[in-house]
Parts: sequence; structure tokens; C-alpha cells
Amino acid sequence: MLFLVRMDVTIPAAVPQTEADAAKAEEKAVAQDLQRDGRWLHLWRVVGKYSNYSVFDVDSNDELHDILQGLPLYKFMQIQVTPLAQHPSAIISAK
Amino acid sequence: MLFLVRMDVTIPAAVPQTEADAAKAEEKAVAQDLQRDGRWLHLWRVVGKYSNYSVFDVDSNDELHDILQGLPLYKFMQIQVTPLAQHPSAIISAK
Amino acid sequence: MLFLVRMDVTIPAAVPQTEADAAKAEEKAVAQDLQRDGRWLHLWRVVGKYSNYSVFDVDSNDELHDILQGLPLYKFMQIQVTPLAQHPSAIISAK
Amino acid sequence: MLFLVRMDVTIPAAVPQTEADAAKAEEKAVAQDLQRDGRWLHLWRVVGKYSNYSVFDVDSNDELHDILQGLPLYKFMQIQVTPLAQHPSAIISAK
Amino acid sequence: MLFLVRMDVTIPAAVPQTEADAAKAEEKAVAQDLQRDGRWLHLWRVVGKYSNYSVFDVDSNDELHDILQGLPLYKFMQIQVTPLAQHPSAIISAK
Amino acid sequence: MLFLVRMDVTIPAAVPQTEADAAKAEEKAVAQDLQRDGRWLHLWRVVGKYSNYSVFDVDSNDELHDILQGLPLYKFMQIQVTPLAQHPSAIISAK
Amino acid sequence: MLFLVRMDVTIPAAVPQTEADAAKAEEKAVAQDLQRDGRWLHLWRVVGKYSNYSVFDVDSNDELHDILQGLPLYKFMQIQVTPLAQHPSAIISAK
Amino acid sequence: MLFLVRMDVTIPAAVPQTEADAAKAEEKAVAQDLQRDGRWLHLWRVVGKYSNYSVFDVDSNDELHDILQGLPLYKFMQIQVTPLAQHPSAIISAK
Amino acid sequence: MLFLVRMDVTIPAAVPQTEADAAKAEEKAVAQDLQRDGRWLHLWRVVGKYSNYSVFDVDSNDELHDILQGLPLYKFMQIQVTPLAQHPSAIISAK
Amino acid sequence: MLFLVRMDVTIPAAVPQTEADAAKAEEKAVAQDLQRDGRWLHLWRVVGKYSNYSVFDVDSNDELHDILQGLPLYKFMQIQVTPLAQHPSAIISAK
Repeated sequence: MLFLVRMDVTIPAAVPQTEADAAKAEEKAVAQDLQRDGRWLHLWRVVGKYSNYSVFDVDSNDELHDILQGLPLYKFMQIQVTPLAQHPSAIISAK
Repeated sequence: MLFLVRMDVTIPAAVPQTEADAAKAEEKAVAQDLQRDGRWLHLWRVVGKYSNYSVFDVDSNDELHDILQGLPLYKFMQIQVTPLAQHPSAIISAK
Repeated sequence: MLFLVRMDVTIPAAVPQTEADAAKAEEKAVAQDLQRDGRWLHLWRVVGKYSNYSVFDVDSNDELHDILQGLPLYKFMQIQVTPLAQHPSAIISAK
Repeated sequence: MLFLVRMDVTIPAAVPQTEADAAKAEEKAVAQDLQRDGRWLHLWRVVGKYSNYSVFDVDSNDELHDILQGLPLYKFMQIQVTPLAQHPSAIISAK
Repeated sequence: MLFLVRMDVTIPAAVPQTEADAAKAEEKAVAQDLQRDGRWLHLWRVVGKYSNYSVFDVDSNDELHDILQGLPLYKFMQIQVTPLAQHPSAIISAK
Repeated sequence: MLFLVRMDVTIPAAVPQTEADAAKAEEKAVAQDLQRDGRWLHLWRVVGKYSNYSVFDVDSNDELHDILQGLPLYKFMQIQVTPLAQHPSAIISAK
Repeated sequence: MLFLVRMDVTIPAAVPQTEADAAKAEEKAVAQDLQRDGRWLHLWRVVGKYSNYSVFDVDSNDELHDILQGLPLYKFMQIQVTPLAQHPSAIISAK
Repeated sequence: MLFLVRMDVTIPAAVPQTEADAAKAEEKAVAQDLQRDGRWLHLWRVVGKYSNYSVFDVDSNDELHDILQGLPLYKFMQIQVTPLAQHPSAIISAK
Repeated sequence: MLFLVRMDVTIPAAVPQTEADAAKAEEKAVAQDLQRDGRWLHLWRVVGKYSNYSVFDVDSNDELHDILQGLPLYKFMQIQVTPLAQHPSAIISAK
Repeated sequence: MLFLVRMDVTIPAAVPQTEADAAKAEEKAVAQDLQRDGRWLHLWRVVGKYSNYSVFDVDSNDELHDILQGLPLYKFMQIQVTPLAQHPSAIISAK
């Protein structure tokens, strides 16, 4: 089941650089793990912004929320979730 | 080069059903051709709406505009285009 | 799996009254069937509007889209879908 | 009498972690008490956000305001209240 | 129990003048009846607009919805409802 | 001459509690004086918010601005002012 | 007493050209009368739009509403009214 | 050449009172100089806000930007600029 | 003096195709004349929309309004005008 | 390939003046280098704002993102990117 997710990251200036760097490194590791296990299906940078559009493939809303809430940068993100369905003109399954 | 495209379709009530049906059938054919040649990379239905999120893989802005403007339902669509770039945490190329 | 759905209905003045009445009657029948089979879990009127907030309990995004797209008043509705998850302070399951 | 309530929580970074944790623990206790006594009828997490949609069943606007204003996290919340009424197609009472 | 209600009226050009005039006359009669029985507590014109701000005093959300839905101009209105409560600095009861 | 005024109060966390409490107490006193002298005609709490809707009865725009600017919580408020006029269906004068 | 008024004019395509022209001619005559008697103090075109920003000098909200409602193009306008007051740095009276 | 300018002032709480007072005093002096030399044509307070609507009469966009950027409170302002033109119904020149 | 202008074109379905085509042909001719005489400095299509971003180089707000109002498609356009000034980091004059 | 880019700069008050000045000086140097090599094609100040509209000429979305992300003031900017295409009425190439 697919969801389009938009994440906009804002790290407050008051966060120490080392803490921000650590969170970003952890975020990268977690994001790559989730890509490898097939749940974080796509990950694109939005041009000109500290933001991404992503597609997640999960079994339930709860699983998606757990993944998002577990991201190391979660507390610095604004997240928008859009449920996706199979499009009748798509030639491959949207899962 | 990837672009996220959101299309919201509104066919006015005044359009005769046969004309609308013909345009939808043509739209489907064109969309499937573009998927087969690799330029319309992803096509998802937005749940609860006559809308889609799509990802296009094109060589230029002009090519993208020509594709969109050539869609049979183009005149009934509101379209939003977001340029995408490679994300540093993505494990596969965004092209 | 639960989704909050907001539906705003606008029937254009050009739609003949008999057609509108027929669509509303069908809508009511479909809505009650879906409530009886447990998928349309809650249905509330928004005070002062021809709108409702509803909660659906479905197995997938596709199932939800099929239900919504199949509503007799679907073409006259603006629909917003919000995926819901279990709240850690809820004393009953959100399913 | 039912109200749909959306709560978006933002705890400023300047709030000490212990104070935030204490407020969250109290919030949970209060929320569960209100669920048990039947006034906080539904409580769902919005996927991807530190937010909830809730339904309250109260006797008056004043009672609802007193409940909301008394929440331990109240000062960190943005709250939207939507009055609900019985829907003519609902097969159960909206109270 | 008080509610602030904003009504914005838009009568489509296609509505015949006599029908519009009849609806306005009925609206006036209904509005004055509701003022006399104490449920339509205040009624003000918004300067420069075919709109009003009103305060209603009703026993329930359902009663308010029934009143609003019963207005002769209801189908031509956009309506916003805001629940009001007693203000701690008010020297008279908000009911 | 009547104006609908919406005030949304946000006291920054950095303001010491004693200063906030003092300002609130002064605000209450000023609000009650203005109610007693007839210029602050109505004062309602917006359910779920640190906000009010009020109606002021003043002789001029300048008088209204002086009153609002003189409120002890003025610097913590976002204020929206809507001029009101006599409604042709109102059975009492809007002044 | 001064008010800034923004008027955006949209004449529907269905209005016959002769009716539109007549309404515009009447509007011009009324606007010039009101300028001559000193109540329509300023009248400026917004560049690129069929809109104006105006300043009115009237004795009351009711007088302003009567003027605006009496404009021949009133039913084709969206109007926004902003009450103005004397600015402490202005070297001339705002009236 | 005339421009309508809206300025909304927000002085952060962290700015020392003496610095804020000094900037306001300078702002007043500059505003009055510009009014005297004819370039700051009108200056009105927006009722209920720390905001003004102004009309500037300048020879070019660059001149207007230099004036605005040179205001002592510039860094605390949000500014909106609307170019104005002669209105065909105006009986005096808009310059 | 430069202005960024955004034009969004919407030709209503009720306009006969021949009338629309004629207006578009005239628009093209006028646009090219204005480009040749140097006042319509840049003209770009917005990808995915029947819209353009343009830069105009004119002597006054009135000249710009006359140009825009004289466009054959003017009545079908929504137009936004943004005054531009010389940027201190630009290595060429913004005129 | 052209993109219209809007940059709005907000330097937080907490940033030391020397750091802000250094970043601005670097920004200017980088902006001028990019103008000289032909990729930052146009750079205009928005009147009344610490903002610019720019046009970039790049080979890909990735190149544009790298340029923007590399700007010394990047972390203080809100950036909006609009892809541009050749306009059929333009007499010169949009590249």
C-alpha cells in the first residue's frame, strides 16, 4: 500500500551543530535501511529546499506512522501524507 | 531528469458524456504510451479524488511542457510541477 | 485501518431536481449498506454545511478509493482523506 | 452533543525535557479519564504528525471549553473545533 | 448555548429575479420569527458584502443545523459556525 | 457604530509568569470597565482557543483603535476588525 | 472617518454587453458624484486588474454600506473594507 | 507615480526597549520628512494593528525601494507593494 | 523600470472556438510587437500551465496598465504585477 | 533550461552581525561569479522586500539544486522554483 510523503526539515539555529550532524547521519542510515528492506520505495530531493518527496510501501497506517515517528529528524520535520491507489491507466501495479 | 506532477481533473458538466468518454479513452492510450517509452515513470491515483501524482523522466522543461500540453484531458486539468533532484540518502539514482 | 474523510457536496443548479433527488436517495442507500457491513464506521453532519465527516474502516487505500469513487454523489463532492493511526493514549483500539 | 476536535501539539525546544515528559504523562492520564467517563469518545493519531483528531460528547460549549482548557498540554496546542450534528443517512444516533 | 455564524450569500445570475425576491422575502420573515422567539440573538450586516454575522442561542448542535438548513436562502449560502463559551472577563452571562 | 473584533492572544514563553499574570489581571479590569461604560458590548470566548469575539460600540475608527491599542495584552494579540452595519432583517437597531 | 476599500469587478460573460456598458457608465457617474461631494476621497486603478483601491470619508459604517450597496456594479464586485485611523506620524489629519 | 504600501511591524521581544524606542523615534522623523517633501503622500493606521497603509509618490521602483529599505524600522516590517494607475472614473489625477 | 508579470489564462468553455482562436492570434501579434519595441522584455511559458511569466520595461505604472489592459486576452487573464528594482549584487543594470 | 527562482531571505536576529555581513559578502561574490559564467541569468530585487526574483540557466534539476544549496545565505532563505519553457509567442529563444 503506497503513500506519498512530503517532509520539510527545519533544524532550529539553537540546536548545536554536532547534535544536528549526528541526527542527519542517523537519519541517513535509517533511510537507507528502510530503502533496502523495501518500505521506503522512493526518495527525491525537492529542488531548492531542505525537503523531500518520498513514497512508502507499508501494510498499514500504523506501520507508516511508526516509521515516520521513528526518524531521527522527526521532531524537526513538517510531514504531509497522501494515500495513493492504483491508477486505472497505470501499466504496472501501484501495489 | 525527474519531475513530480500533480494533475487535478475537472470535466465541466456542460461537456457531453461522449466527448468526455472519448477524451478519457485517448488520455489512457497516451498515458500508457508514455509509460511504455519510459517518460511517464510513475502514475498513482490520489485516494478520493479525480487526481493523480505522477513522476516524469524527461530531458528538459520544454519536453515536459510538450507532453503535458499534449494530453487529451489537458484543458480540464490543473497541473502543479515540482522539479526533483538526487537525494543524498537515496541508494538508487534519481536519474 | 481507519481514515477520516471529509465530504463537501455541491450539486450544480443545472442538475435537474429529479436527478439530484435520485442521486441523494441512492447515496443514502449505499451509505447505509456500507455502515451495516462495518466499513463506514461513523457519519456526522457538519453543522451549517452540506458536508460530512466520516470514518472508514478498510483494508487498503484501494478499497477506500473504490468505495468513495462508487458513491452516487461522488462527482458532486470535494473529498479530503486523512489516514489515522492508533493513539498511544487511546484506551480502545483504533483498529 | 458531538464535536470533532483537531489538536496539533508543538512543544517549544526551550521547554526542559522533564517538564515536557511530565506534561505528556499528565495529558495521557487526563485523556484516559475523559475517555472512561464517556466525554472523550474517540481519539486518533494523525499519521505523520504530533496531532490527533478526537470526538467529544458534551452537554454544552462551555463544558467542551473547560475540558480543552484543562488539558495539561493545552498551552502547546493549536485546537480546531467543528460542531457535528445527526446525519440523515446515519443508522445510529450521533447523540 | 451561543454560536457565532457567518453567512455569505451568492445568488447565481441564472436564478430568476422573482424567485430570488421571493426567497429573500421568506428569508426575512423566517429571520424575524427566529429573532422574536429568541434563538437568532443578533444579526448584523458586514459592511460592503451580502453577508451577515449572527449569534444564535440554541440548545444543541442539531437545533442549530436544523435552523440553518431551514433558511430559505440556505442553498445560496456559505456558512461558518464558531462555538462560543462564557468569557471569564465578561460581566454578563454568555448563556 | 458597531465592530466585530476577533482577538487571538499568544503570550511568548519568555514572558515571566508574574508579568503575564499581571497583564491578564489588568486586561480583565480594563475589559470590565469598558463593558460597564457600554463600549465593549459583547465578549465571548472562542471554544478551544485563547481567543475572543467581541462587539464594540464606538463613535469612530479612532476611538476603536485607541481602545484596542490601550489593552494591557495588546502587544500579545493578533486583532481582526470587521465593520458592522444595520441588517435590513434585524428587528432591533444595530446602533 | 476613513476606510480603505478594495473593489474587484467580475462581470460574468452571460451579462449582455449593452447591460454591462450601461452599468459601467452609471458606475462612473455615481463615482464622480461621490468624489465631488467629498465622500469618495481617492480612487486608484490596481495595475493589471479590473480592480480599484479607494478611500471613503463617511460618518458611519451604515453610510459606507449604503454607498457601496448602491453602486451600479455592486452585484459584480468583491469588496474588502479596512477601517483606518489617524497615524501618530502623519503630519496631516486622517479625518 | 503612485504605490499603495502596506507595512506590518513586528518588533521581537528580544529587542531592548531603548533600541525599539530609538528606532520608532527615528522612523517618525524620517516618515515626516518624506511626507514634507511630498513622496510619502498618505499615511494611515490600520485599526487594531501595528500596521499602516501608505501611498508613495515616486519616480521609479528603485526610488521606492531605496525609501523603504532606508526606514529605521525596515528590518522589523513585512511590506506589500501594489502599483497604482490613473482610474478612468477619477476626477483628479493619480499623478 | 522593470515589472515581473504573471498571467494565467482561462478561456471559458462558452467562448466559441473561432473567437478564442482569433483572440489568441491577435494576442500573439501584439505580444511580438511589444517585444520588438523593447517593452515586453522577457516572455516565458510556465511548465504545465496556460500561464506565462513576463518582464516588462516601461516608464510608468500607467504605461504598464495600458499595455496589459490592451491585450486581446486581457479579459480572460488573472494578472499579478511585482515591481522590480536594481539588485546590489547584479552585474548588469535592471534598468 | 530556464527556471524562475524566488528567494526570500530572513536572517535571524540571533545571528551575530559580523557573521551576517560575512555571509552577505560571500553571497555577493558567488552570485556575481554565477552571473559571469552565464548560469545566473537575471537577478532582480523585489521592491520593499529582502527578496529577489532570479532566472537560472542550467543543464539539469540537479545542477540547479547544487547551485542553490551552495549559496552562502542558503540556510536563511525560503526558495520557490518554477520551471520555464519556450513560449510560442516569444521572438527569442528561452534556451
